Amino acid sequence: MKNFMDKDFLLESETAKTLFHGIAKDMPICDYHCHLSPKEIFENKAPESITQLWLSGDHYKWRAMRSAGIEEKYCTGDATDKEKFLAFAKTLQFCIGNPLYHWAHLELQRYFGIDTPLNAKTAEEVFERANGAIEDGDFRPQTLIEKSGVKYVCTTDDPIDDLKYHKLLKEKNLSFEVLPSFRPDRALNINADGFIEYIGALGEAAGVEIGSLSDVIEALYKRSEYFNECGCRISDQAFEYVPYARADSEELNGIFARAMLGKKVSRSDEDKYKTAVMLTLGAKYQKLGWAMEIHIGAMRNNSTRMFNSLGADTGFDSVGDSEIAKPLSRFLNALDTLCALPKTVLFNLNDKDNTVLATMLGNFQSAEAESKIQFGPAWWFLDTMDGMTAQMKSLGNLGVLGKFIGMETDSRSFTSYARHEYFRRILCNLVGSWIENGMYAYDEDIVKEIIEGICFNNAVNYFGF
Amino acid sequence: MKNFMDKDFLLESETAKTLFHGIAKDMPICDYHCHLSPKEIFENKAPESITQLWLSGDHYKWRAMRSAGIEEKYCTGDATDKEKFLAFAKTLQFCIGNPLYHWAHLELQRYFGIDTPLNAKTAEEVFERANGAIEDGDFRPQTLIEKSGVKYVCTTDDPIDDLKYHKLLKEKNLSFEVLPSFRPDRALNINADGFIEYIGALGEAAGVEIGSLSDVIEALYKRSEYFNECGCRISDQAFEYVPYARADSEELNGIFARAMLGKKVSRSDEDKYKTAVMLTLGAKYQKLGWAMEIHIGAMRNNSTRMFNSLGADTGFDSVGDSEIAKPLSRFLNALDTLCALPKTVLFNLNDKDNTVLATMLGNFQSAEAESKIQFGPAWWFLDTMDGMTAQMKSLGNLGVLGKFIGMETDSRSFTSYARHEYFRRILCNLVGSWIENGMYAYDEDIVKEIIEGICFNNAVNYFGF
Amino acid sequence: MKNFMDKDFLLESETAKTLFHGIAKDMPICDYHCHLSPKEIFENKAPESITQLWLSGDHYKWRAMRSAGIEEKYCTGDATDKEKFLAFAKTLQFCIGNPLYHWAHLELQRYFGIDTPLNAKTAEEVFERANGAIEDGDFRPQTLIEKSGVKYVCTTDDPIDDLKYHKLLKEKNLSFEVLPSFRPDRALNINADGFIEYIGALGEAAGVEIGSLSDVIEALYKRSEYFNECGCRISDQAFEYVPYARADSEELNGIFARAMLGKKVSRSDEDKYKTAVMLTLGAKYQKLGWAMEIHIGAMRNNSTRMFNSLGADTGFDSVGDSEIAKPLSRFLNALDTLCALPKTVLFNLNDKDNTVLATMLGNFQSAEAESKIQFGPAWWFLDTMDGMTAQMKSLGNLGVLGKFIGMETDSRSFTSYARHEYFRRILCNLVGSWIENGMYAYDEDIVKEIIEGICFNNAVNYFGF
Repeated sequence: MKNFMDKDFLLESETAKTLFHGIAKDMPICDYHCHLSPKEIFENKAPESITQLWLSGDHYKWRAMRSAGIEEKYCTGDATDKEKFLAFAKTLQFCIGNPLYHWAHLELQRYFGIDTPLNAKTAEEVFERANGAIEDGDFRPQTLIEKSGVKYVCTTDDPIDDLKYHKLLKEKNLSFEVLPSFRPDRALNINADGFIEYIGALGEAAGVEIGSLSDVIEALYKRSEYFNECGCRISDQAFEYVPYARADSEELNGIFARAMLGKKVSRSDEDKYKTAVMLTLGAKYQKLGWAMEIHIGAMRNNSTRMFNSLGADTGFDSVGDSEIAKPLSRFLNALDTLCALPKTVLFNLNDKDNTVLATMLGNFQSAEAESKIQFGPAWWFLDTMDGMTAQMKSLGNLGVLGKFIGMETDSRSFTSYARHEYFRRILCNLVGSWIENGMYAYDEDIVKEIIEGICFNNAVNYFGF
Repeated sequence: MKNFMDKDFLLESETAKTLFHGIAKDMPICDYHCHLSPKEIFENKAPESITQLWLSGDHYKWRAMRSAGIEEKYCTGDATDKEKFLAFAKTLQFCIGNPLYHWAHLELQRYFGIDTPLNAKTAEEVFERANGAIEDGDFRPQTLIEKSGVKYVCTTDDPIDDLKYHKLLKEKNLSFEVLPSFRPDRALNINADGFIEYIGALGEAAGVEIGSLSDVIEALYKRSEYFNECGCRISDQAFEYVPYARADSEELNGIFARAMLGKKVSRSDEDKYKTAVMLTLGAKYQKLGWAMEIHIGAMRNNSTRMFNSLGADTGFDSVGDSEIAKPLSRFLNALDTLCALPKTVLFNLNDKDNTVLATMLGNFQSAEAESKIQFGPAWWFLDTMDGMTAQMKSLGNLGVLGKFIGMETDSRSFTSYARHEYFRRILCNLVGSWIENGMYAYDEDIVKEIIEGICFNNAVNYFGF
Repeated sequence: MKNFMDKDFLLESETAKTLFHGIAKDMPICDYHCHLSPKEIFENKAPESITQLWLSGDHYKWRAMRSAGIEEKYCTGDATDKEKFLAFAKTLQFCIGNPLYHWAHLELQRYFGIDTPLNAKTAEEVFERANGAIEDGDFRPQTLIEKSGVKYVCTTDDPIDDLKYHKLLKEKNLSFEVLPSFRPDRALNINADGFIEYIGALGEAAGVEIGSLSDVIEALYKRSEYFNECGCRISDQAFEYVPYARADSEELNGIFARAMLGKKVSRSDEDKYKTAVMLTLGAKYQKLGWAMEIHIGAMRNNSTRMFNSLGADTGFDSVGDSEIAKPLSRFLNALDTLCALPKTVLFNLNDKDNTVLATMLGNFQSAEAESKIQFGPAWWFLDTMDGMTAQMKSLGNLGVLGKFIGMETDSRSFTSYARHEYFRRILCNLVGSWIENGMYAYDEDIVKEIIEGICFNNAVNYFGF
């Protein structure tokens, strides 16, 4: 029996160990997509306890606890820090096979220096020791980021954001850069509550009086230019399904006008609006040299009861299963036809779509960048050992894995950089097993270039940081 | 080379062997979903030959035989017992990689004491020895169930069933309980032949004169109460796809009225009817404290020619591929919104849906039960080593595997309990490999609780037997 | 570390080695589906360089190069042979995990006698040595086919083809047969550009004046009879999705008439036309004793820009994700109902459909052939180690793997027979691992029959060569 999560965790061959310890482990981190708060990074406050760090906002952990039959009081409710931590520990011991189990122990080891397996028996001891470590040590966000070897943190920001904290952080000359990403979801979601107000705020932020769809575009263009000045190199978009429906500008203006009168538009009209805006934005991103990230397949806020009680991002999302191949192809082709397709990173939340995405890439590659169209790393529900392995095998089988931009955390937590270590162990184990089995010719330089590339260099080159 | 299917079959590590032989092997069985006949259990007749036991009703075996080019005469036709058995043996040797191959040999070993691999060469010998074992031994249903360590058998019953045999069996005070499950498929299938007659029979069984949809509900409620008195704790429902469409009661009554006039209703109307009935039933199940099983994705009776010749359940079904995420989410949410969502077990027949189901669970968990919403074990076409492993990995990655209710046979055969052994070997091998590889901290008590839970205890607690 | 791609490449157990070296390696090849040019086989010209052999028409390699950021000039453009080869070598070293990497090295080893791993460092040397081998050796198509142990080559031909080269090749009495396959895609694609002209050419080829749909059928029947006389035993059909919609002959004639007037017909009308033609053709194939191949799920020519520049089959295709279960079942059932279902081989391009296809088979098997309905081998984008393993596991789990007709190349290249070796290594490794682990009873005769069957005999028997 191997030791529990020791230095060779997940490394099943000698080659895997060599790749990880000799190359991957000490590469810096380019976290090109996350949900960290620039304000929190700037304010740099230490957490008060491990409960605050782990359980104050982590919907992964809340979901697991609810699945184990734990009452809401211990998740988002008014139980004490200690009660919550004990409830989580009791849950965790049943989470066999779950990445939460590995993430939690990696974080305990790396940030708290605690090797003890966490379960109901050890919970009190771990709670005390972890809080002791927080008290004695430095768990402020900037320290955690720096200690983790992070060089780039790309947050996720609304076009109307003034990016004040990004600017303040830039002035501090930290060892890492905090860059904004442009996420215009709210300008796209024409049927969402608050759309009219949002358009108003967008117009104000951009200094554009918005009366028509072309004004929306103008405002988004202005904001994207502002973001670009602030170091933004990435846009991001979330789609439950991939919309693709064309309409002429008269029809589009009619749809927009109806929405601005507070009317719901049909799904078909919604798709037309979204398609039009996305095509115009895509062309803009291409001009700015940005990469366009598209996250496909999250079905959000499935429990109305809990949404009404707790709001969004509290652990009530799941994976959709729409057909995506045709609309996605048509959308990318529409931009490609105009030579206006930006660098694009496609993320799927349903692993049934791995083959569709990994082959979609090949339709639109070009010499503008190495793997101009990228298959985003396994994300959220797929951010597991099996999910990451499947994504990398799929990209290996169907694309050029050596040019992969690798991992990002997609996280809200300052200790989640342990997920990069998790990813790197899995990467090294996969590549190591191929080399070990005589399936890839070992050449030290080439293998080093591939591993360093996937860990850090490819992303930095790709995004142009 | 390991010995063929010896005591360490499928157990690839020392930990796996320890878990299986030390914990899993001797746990009792809770077969919470099967298609055994309570009448046959009660009548307790011994089979006349292994052919009668194996080939008189097993559509898995017939399918394999037809796929090997065997004539129908040797499957469901008038060939002799011996001819049929020889034809099956000749087929089986080509079924490499098929669970049938393992099931057959496990059954030969456990129930007949025969270790000889079955193939065309050994078929005559095995046929004689097996029939000798039947003659000399006790192959009556009650003995087979008892010998297999079964404590609970949940059959699948129509609401109009009088449950006579369940009552008679209860009086016998056997070492196991035979409990009914409530499967109202025929009350849902508004477009099926015989719907009008069925509604008549339902009304009669319930003592309700059915003139409208609310009378249907009343009748089903009465029958569910009767089932509950007879020990029922589970309802079951089969959907080729997940219907979800809402309508008001006027429209629903119109749909029902048209069907009762013998008219076919549109698919959209069928969905509205099914949705309305299922929502009402779900709330009732919740009040009764029942669990609601939903089996999604079987496409039945694909060959009209063979259906006309042999009827249903004869081996002409296959796996559908509808989109299920959205309607399933909406259906569960509609109940959840009313605080009327019962414990629910979701089963998929298409493994492409593993991620959808394993994440759907998390949307609707609550403290009413440990893993109130369960991901049902790999079933029917997925009841294979790969299928079971994938289901458990998926649940491990995305839910709380330690609270899984584990295996059921879904079978029509009294020797199919060998499938629980098959499942347990696969479970112990999977969990064992994680522990062996340092991916889960070994703690004897905790691991014991998990394995015993998945083998038996979790199901008993969950269903409240 | 195992040696790089030595004689035991991919063979992970002793049994796997025994099966491959003792049985599979020297079996002849039945390449029952490929895109080789009978004209090129007949003309039998040696290539001028490895670049011409490898890079003049291989869209797999072009795609990989574009994905690595290589300019089009080095793919399909006017760079020199050497420049192109170097660009490919530079790409290949990043293709870790890609079958291209293995195919290229297998071809270098088997046809060129070069063991050197190909990468940017070795590219010049390999280029020189490979071209030397071409100059000194015999790389003419007929020699390559014969040296590879091929006995049957089934090309893919349009119904209007005169099969002149098949006839000329037959007269040469080579050690292998080159047989046509009947691929009526252009008669089906009613909305494609050039449909009217094609129907004219079809009428001319068949000697039928085409004025109605029944004339189309008559012409296709005549051509199929002509193909049959020329040794054809296989039809082939490609569907992006599976069409199934019924219409009466009046409606069908109306649809056809509109198309012949140059009008686009609706998708629903297109489906009706395709369904009608396919049902009629299927019955004809059954009368001729042919097998019907159906390739499902390729989404072609996704980049309009590149299609306009380079035409079809240049590397801009990808995988679709339509629902296929229901229309495919209805289509096969419609033929089965009339006892007119031919032997059928179902190929999927999206691995999410493995379970659907592997269970669909079982609905329509019969004693007319061993596994009358076959699950075609992993193809094109799935023609990878993972894809082939998944297809065989799926068929193993759900059908009778021992009756599988095995591999075909689907290739345009004369050195691609290395893919049969690749397949056989994967097959032997899979079967070997089952035997090694005690999951299948080892019997020399039976295992030999299974391996020889899947490598060659099953296909020859199935197609009736």
